[in-house]
Amino acid sequence: MANDTNRFQAIISHCKEYGFIFPSSEIYDGLSAVYDYGQWGSELKKNIKDHWWKSMTQLNENIVGIDAAIFMHPTTWKASGHVDSFSDPMIDNKDSKKRYRVDHLIEARIDELEKEGKKPEADALQAEMDRLLAASDLPGLKTLIETQKIKCGVSGTSNWTDVRDFNLMFSTQLGSVSEDASEIYLRPETAQGIFVNFLNVQKTGRMKVPFGIAQIGKAFRNEIVARQFIFRMREFEQMEMQFFIRPGTENEWYNYWKEARMKWHLGLGIPAEKYRFHDHVKLAHYAKAACDIEYEFPIGFKEVEGIHSRGDFDLKNHQEYSKKKMQYFDPEINQNYIPYVIETSIGLDRTVLMVLSEAYVEEDLSTPEKADSRVVLRFPPRLAPIKLAILPLTKKDGLPELAREIMEACKPKFRCFYEEKDAIGKRYRRMDAIGTPFCVTVDHQSKEDATVTIRYRDNMQQERIPISEVAAIVNRQLEG
Amino acid sequence: MANDTNRFQAIISHCKEYGFIFPSSEIYDGLSAVYDYGQWGSELKKNIKDHWWKSMTQLNENIVGIDAAIFMHPTTWKASGHVDSFSDPMIDNKDSKKRYRVDHLIEARIDELEKEGKKPEADALQAEMDRLLAASDLPGLKTLIETQKIKCGVSGTSNWTDVRDFNLMFSTQLGSVSEDASEIYLRPETAQGIFVNFLNVQKTGRMKVPFGIAQIGKAFRNEIVARQFIFRMREFEQMEMQFFIRPGTENEWYNYWKEARMKWHLGLGIPAEKYRFHDHVKLAHYAKAACDIEYEFPIGFKEVEGIHSRGDFDLKNHQEYSKKKMQYFDPEINQNYIPYVIETSIGLDRTVLMVLSEAYVEEDLSTPEKADSRVVLRFPPRLAPIKLAILPLTKKDGLPELAREIMEACKPKFRCFYEEKDAIGKRYRRMDAIGTPFCVTVDHQSKEDATVTIRYRDNMQQERIPISEVAAIVNRQLEG
Repeated sequence: MANDTNRFQAIISHCKEYGFIFPSSEIYDGLSAVYDYGQWGSELKKNIKDHWWKSMTQLNENIVGIDAAIFMHPTTWKASGHVDSFSDPMIDNKDSKKRYRVDHLIEARIDELEKEGKKPEADALQAEMDRLLAASDLPGLKTLIETQKIKCGVSGTSNWTDVRDFNLMFSTQLGSVSEDASEIYLRPETAQGIFVNFLNVQKTGRMKVPFGIAQIGKAFRNEIVARQFIFRMREFEQMEMQFFIRPGTENEWYNYWKEARMKWHLGLGIPAEKYRFHDHVKLAHYAKAACDIEYEFPIGFKEVEGIHSRGDFDLKNHQEYSKKKMQYFDPEINQNYIPYVIETSIGLDRTVLMVLSEAYVEEDLSTPEKADSRVVLRFPPRLAPIKLAILPLTKKDGLPELAREIMEACKPKFRCFYEEKDAIGKRYRRMDAIGTPFCVTVDHQSKEDATVTIRYRDNMQQERIPISEVAAIVNRQLEG
Repeated sequence: MANDTNRFQAIISHCKEYGFIFPSSEIYDGLSAVYDYGQWGSELKKNIKDHWWKSMTQLNENIVGIDAAIFMHPTTWKASGHVDSFSDPMIDNKDSKKRYRVDHLIEARIDELEKEGKKPEADALQAEMDRLLAASDLPGLKTLIETQKIKCGVSGTSNWTDVRDFNLMFSTQLGSVSEDASEIYLRPETAQGIFVNFLNVQKTGRMKVPFGIAQIGKAFRNEIVARQFIFRMREFEQMEMQFFIRPGTENEWYNYWKEARMKWHLGLGIPAEKYRFHDHVKLAHYAKAACDIEYEFPIGFKEVEGIHSRGDFDLKNHQEYSKKKMQYFDPEINQNYIPYVIETSIGLDRTVLMVLSEAYVEEDLSTPEKADSRVVLRFPPRLAPIKLAILPLTKKDGLPELAREIMEACKPKFRCFYEEKDAIGKRYRRMDAIGTPFCVTVDHQSKEDATVTIRYRDNMQQERIPISEVAAIVNRQLEG
């Protein structure tokens, strides 16, 4: 199933056809690497958010949430290192005026060498590029492009500018009064909103280390190459938790959160073999240890979540730039210190894509007599956009009225869907396609004995149950 | 109570002291007109969002939600009229380099005239300014400033530039490749995300007119003067619903939504006399009828929500700019048409401020023997950040263990808070200050007869109840 491009394309089409995800501003031919969540995608996304939020805050007494603004004081991004180093080296071709990411240009050359059977040369080039990128050696990278005789795909020339760093943050001007106006950034990550509020939350919430602060929110990165549907977008949403701990306990807590987060993933009903840990060997400048939780998307294993042992990097830098003491007095050991941090950071859109990828199944239902198939989204019931469809078998004989009574009783409890048009089989298939776990059908017998047929999405089995038990049966599946 | 500045200041201080709302990036001395929601403010805000979302989508079968991106194709804002007319006239003083909003400058002069007892002159100036603003007569406005001899407060001179329009949208650059990079805007309202997705949602959701699309999301306006705490922010959140109807039924549906929305407000437990409708006499260019629901904040009656009859203004313009037919085929009357729209648009942050203002009470609890007082937030239980506090009377004799058992049983159901430090009275007051509706105290009798004391926030009454009934009692208050 790995790297199954057809399956990935089928999921993208399905998302559009059934109201999960549309290209943003599609009537204007879309906006590159930006997507809108439609009527069922927005419910799926909200259910995932709520599930994460509850599991992080409500179920952990020592974790509270915040909701910081996207706009932050620009010094925040000096302190975090983003102004200076959140960038990609770029180069322009002077003839075509095309701009390229340097690593992409060189990687294309490496692919060429491999195709020509020159594996050792390819490996040597890869190693040299990695070394120069790590050292931020921009002139060295230019020399490499020149010695490799890399040409622009448009102009066909090697007439290159110097290599420059291009910052990935979006900027805008705040304020209108000319001398007051200041350049600010759209936050490229939500984590810093937590760090700058560390003292406020710790003090007003009387929090004791170890404790965590959780946040869900938008972040923005001006990715040069953004693709693969909602996997890498320029506007995306993160679900992050920063856990503040006593220095010296970081290995213990790092392992605790690795395990806790994997347990959360398995709790989505996704089998363990679809996940793997990827431990970082090369660490980011702020990290003491770091790993990704990767899920096997149809396009292969890719990062969904990162767990990072950040030490005191962030709080220390904010202390330096703000001149505010980012310290915690630990009454147990009678000491002041800057807490260390373990971060769990999961991409909300990637989680949506993971849940969709896992749920999407094309089933062959053919019998010797008849070819048949269905597409079904096997969402865990609590994540499904609609929990229960209520379907009168026909539009007459009082069946719609009885179905409406069930609807009125159930809809305050969970999201229901009422439909009376088309043959019942067609209606079932439409509910399969958006992942509705339960359908109840009201027929003539219902009027006699107050029972309905409940039909289960996954096995398509049907059984007769009393109307009075419908809500309880659905509710039971939504818990736990 | 109207225009009670002290009360307003007290609420702002309380919000900061108890972890509801902090100035954004406060360690860097804040960012003007931007705020962060702290540990209890973020829960209050989420509860309000969830309540609105449920009441709009789950309880209305013909309303679905979407979640469109903040980034939209720039042509969207040509079509909506924002590029051309979402602006304020501004003027610069050449000596001080200070920039002013023209209406603010002239209004200051009107105030002066009134203070000097020159009411007729003040009224005439007001009328003239309104006329020039309505006509977008920028040279006329400059002439008015000159003839009124209005001076800059900093330089004291009348050395003015020409009047220019300043657009209130934030802009940024999308993409890095120079020729691909395009200027885009941070959406100044969420409504357009709904309009550009009208066809996608209607078709993939098989929606039949009348139907609605709801959305909650951030919007951004580069307000010149942003103040009054979270009432007017540069980054804010809207909860909007666009209801698509057959042309000719707009008055009926406008009145329907006016009434339905007021009912929603009263359902928050806020008395009717704190609300009023303000019908717009001067209508925006897109409106056929419009009104505000105003709430009496401590700073006076102010808009919380708007209900607007927008006709086909938006869909028609998007049709013109996108060349995509924004039509609906109505099977009941066998006709194609561009639907009309009734919009309900409520500010989420303003709703938070309204709920906080309504809930905040300073109570004098003095007796002849002892002076005493408390601050209590009388939130409706379903909006309260924490529903139940569980408090062992002392830290020993097994009381914490028993309290923990109750905690474990209740916390999967709703947000609970456990605390064993400080005298019980002090703990009650802290729970009052963040609006927790119920506290249960575990004492020595609890171990003998499995009962606890439940204490009600609003009347401070206490009663003995079986431990087995705690969750049910709280749950009952959260429904309905």
